[in-house]
Amino acid sequence: MSAHVLPQDAQAPFYLGIDLGGTNIKSGVVDDLGRPLSSVSVPTQAHEGPRVGLDNIERAGRAAVERSGLGWDRIAGVGLGSPGTMDIQAGLLLDPPNLPGWINFPIRDALASRLQKQTVLQNDANAAAYGEYWAGAARGTRSLVLLTLGTGIGCGIVEDGDIVEGRHSHGGECGHIIIQMDGGRVCSCGKVGHLEAYASATALVKRAHEALESEASPLLRKALAEGNLTSEEVSIAAAAGDPLARRLMTETARYLAVGATCLMHTIDPDVVLFSGGMIAAGPSFLDEIRGFINVLAFPIPARETRIAYAELGGDAGFIGAAGCARVKFAKPR
Amino acid sequence: MSAHVLPQDAQAPFYLGIDLGGTNIKSGVVDDLGRPLSSVSVPTQAHEGPRVGLDNIERAGRAAVERSGLGWDRIAGVGLGSPGTMDIQAGLLLDPPNLPGWINFPIRDALASRLQKQTVLQNDANAAAYGEYWAGAARGTRSLVLLTLGTGIGCGIVEDGDIVEGRHSHGGECGHIIIQMDGGRVCSCGKVGHLEAYASATALVKRAHEALESEASPLLRKALAEGNLTSEEVSIAAAAGDPLARRLMTETARYLAVGATCLMHTIDPDVVLFSGGMIAAGPSFLDEIRGFINVLAFPIPARETRIAYAELGGDAGFIGAAGCARVKFAKPR
Repeated sequence: MSAHVLPQDAQAPFYLGIDLGGTNIKSGVVDDLGRPLSSVSVPTQAHEGPRVGLDNIERAGRAAVERSGLGWDRIAGVGLGSPGTMDIQAGLLLDPPNLPGWINFPIRDALASRLQKQTVLQNDANAAAYGEYWAGAARGTRSLVLLTLGTGIGCGIVEDGDIVEGRHSHGGECGHIIIQMDGGRVCSCGKVGHLEAYASATALVKRAHEALESEASPLLRKALAEGNLTSEEVSIAAAAGDPLARRLMTETARYLAVGATCLMHTIDPDVVLFSGGMIAAGPSFLDEIRGFINVLAFPIPARETRIAYAELGGDAGFIGAAGCARVKFAKPR
Repeated sequence: MSAHVLPQDAQAPFYLGIDLGGTNIKSGVVDDLGRPLSSVSVPTQAHEGPRVGLDNIERAGRAAVERSGLGWDRIAGVGLGSPGTMDIQAGLLLDPPNLPGWINFPIRDALASRLQKQTVLQNDANAAAYGEYWAGAARGTRSLVLLTLGTGIGCGIVEDGDIVEGRHSHGGECGHIIIQMDGGRVCSCGKVGHLEAYASATALVKRAHEALESEASPLLRKALAEGNLTSEEVSIAAAAGDPLARRLMTETARYLAVGATCLMHTIDPDVVLFSGGMIAAGPSFLDEIRGFINVLAFPIPARETRIAYAELGGDAGFIGAAGCARVKFAKPR
């Protein structure tokens, strides 16, 4: 996570970034160099519907500005990252699975009206990718793919400095590329063979459950008995030398390498980044991913593409959302 | 194929486009609206090496200008599309499989020197995609993916009006995305489970051979006996109602839909185009592809993305290469 920059060291103009999640809203004020001056987290209460949610978004945004020590008049624009489905250009949430009931909600204009600030909407995974591009692990490059490993697999793509939003706001939905069309696992979205069905944290835990039906692993079985069989526990058990846990992590690395290779043979970015809780597995996991990419990808991208962990952690979303506001609202100088 | 526009109807400035293939070189002069004034085809003689090849490229280019009826002074720049591997920005062929022995050959500058014209190099599949974007089936859109079905599967991507070249000239190598990571077919490139290993014309013929070992099909068996078991024959047999041929075509449509879906969930373009000999199979084949996409892709891109055949046929490469010269060398107006 980024340390906060002090107001006297910060570079104007300033932007408010808000990262709307199904559970929490993160928000912060970000300076012109992508550095946060503040960050706050507020529960979304998504199940209460979009009006309560909008109250909470506004509360998060106002708290972030207050804690930054800046006046509202210093905020040049607002960026909001949200889970999909959405129409990015229209500023509209359509029917986001993580925000049940927020159907056809004109969230951008509603928030702009509440805050009396020009506001831009972006997909949350796209915003996180833009954050890493602007101020994180892909700083100084022109293109990246970010895969965020959590309940699902979020993906954002920046190509030649611009987010690949897609014509129908479905750019970078790469958790749902098909890597096993026949006999594949069923994805959380209901379709078959998607990357997310293999390589998300949820998929890792599911594969652990399946393996424990027939295979021995004292560490994982203990975690299961304690109701604590999480992706973190699998990672910890692997680090402790547990053979099943190691195999599960190695398989995950291979699945991620398959996904990365597909994107390297499509976008061919400067850098492929991984983020999310699973990167706590550390450098050895990244090395495993790299090793599989070396086998799977063509020689030149395999050799030249930087494969790395993201740097901004949970702040990438609001920093990137602020960056989107900067792209949209910065005055030409 | 495009009809030639007459010099008096043509719109200056003019560009010379050259499409270098492993077998033939196609070249034509193209006007500022993407319409060819001429087209010629010359054997590549690739096996004779890059010097003889360069002679032939020069010959093709000079013949195209001569047939256009324009003087050389009217040509504002030259675009050359070539098979990879290459370094597009450096104008360098590295080690193209279809041009054996053309290793580390600075083809762009060599050609510029021969023709005394500023010259730009582009990947051939990227150039074809740009041709369809500029003057073909994707005219008026901002983004497309083109899949060319032949010996292999060529792919080019245009995003927000620009070719996705990639950082290492591997953008749009989507014949080599992995759609069946476990138990997949071996690709011509030697790797496993690639789209090209399933859905190219070559793969279709291979699958027909395999099926004929155990299945009946008088039409395909006759073609086999006559040494004429081509993708065209499979397509013709399918149109004549042959059950095996129909199944093979349907499977091909599904594989292409898998590839298209991966790209729709990554790039999310305005339009996905198919070109190459296999589109002679006609509207019913395209309808089959569409039907599978409707099942495989998310509802919004499935409903909204235009799925169509390309329009420029074998001229797309040189028209698009000329378009790349136009992007690079057009004077601001």
